[in-house]
Amino acid sequence: MGRCSDARDRLLATAAKLLHERGYTAVSVSDICQAAGLKKGSFYHFFESKQALAIATLEKFAELNRERVAQLHARQSAAVEKLRTMFMGMYDGACERAAANSPLLGCPLGNLAGEMAGRDDAITDKLQTIFVEWREGIIKILEQADTNGELVVSDPKATAETLVACVQGAALMARTMSDPEIVRRMGEQALAMLERPATADATVPAS
Amino acid sequence: MGRCSDARDRLLATAAKLLHERGYTAVSVSDICQAAGLKKGSFYHFFESKQALAIATLEKFAELNRERVAQLHARQSAAVEKLRTMFMGMYDGACERAAANSPLLGCPLGNLAGEMAGRDDAITDKLQTIFVEWREGIIKILEQADTNGELVVSDPKATAETLVACVQGAALMARTMSDPEIVRRMGEQALAMLERPATADATVPAS
Repeated sequence: MGRCSDARDRLLATAAKLLHERGYTAVSVSDICQAAGLKKGSFYHFFESKQALAIATLEKFAELNRERVAQLHARQSAAVEKLRTMFMGMYDGACERAAANSPLLGCPLGNLAGEMAGRDDAITDKLQTIFVEWREGIIKILEQADTNGELVVSDPKATAETLVACVQGAALMARTMSDPEIVRRMGEQALAMLERPATADATVPAS
Repeated sequence: MGRCSDARDRLLATAAKLLHERGYTAVSVSDICQAAGLKKGSFYHFFESKQALAIATLEKFAELNRERVAQLHARQSAAVEKLRTMFMGMYDGACERAAANSPLLGCPLGNLAGEMAGRDDAITDKLQTIFVEWREGIIKILEQADTNGELVVSDPKATAETLVACVQGAALMARTMSDPEIVRRMGEQALAMLERPATADATVPAS
């Protein structure tokens, strides 16, 4: 049982790595089995198909993202700082890869979306669920900030949606241009956008 | 000669369509030849490889983008309106596809970047060149607006880079969520970010 579960975890970890490095179409079940040091029988014992394994890696990533966003939400810090952490986590990861002369890989969700969204229904559904969940986590942070009077957020859903899209755009461009600084700069600009309503509100005289 | 050039154009148009619909790895030279109604001999007369044809489609797309940005730059309208046109062009295209019940396809550049950036040097180089050119076009619009006093743009390069990343993030998320409105909403938020320094600087007109 221990070995069984180890094999499943190895398949998940190997698939996550290979899909992130090479993309979905370019990686075969054989590639994954070979890299994980397992036979195809083991693979099909745990997963029906490459698609099913890819969706399981997405679920694993979603869990991690869910935890991260919940941790941010629970922090005793300003909303802007919580959201900055979201960008800086990605920035730090990109810097580490750049320092090791490894190509930047972008976001596993965004890469899979860019390759498969609208082309594979099950993968698209899973990606949609994860992105909605991510957005909902950010909405909570924004609503709390609005309640605290830290920010004025007239449309939390649209703002959260934009922040997720900013993270995705930043990840994609940083990877394409081989430049982690794009994530940092974009994060700063996205956060400056957020601060605006509070500033605007503070300066608009009562009429 | 006429037929020759027609065959090359057909290969380019077919490849652009298939790559946009299915991605790079999933499309073979045979797929492209079959869809274009041409033999492989014709293909290899014009292009060395699928990679070379993909780069040629990128060049074609870059030309179009260059023209669009130049036209925007030449317009007698506010910079914010020029930049809004950039988002709205993408929004209109996405709406047309949604109205026809066709899946949204995202940006051909962003999709290829999400699949191949850092994995194929020649494609990555070409994508970088096109993104830099796009950014430079936006910088011109921003600098002109700064000179006119329409906007205050302290770092045109960073702002232009962010706008390109916003377009990419919006295209990716709209496609993934099957929702063209994401492009419109993100465009508005990105442009609101731009207007900020001008608003802060300019005296508020009496209404």
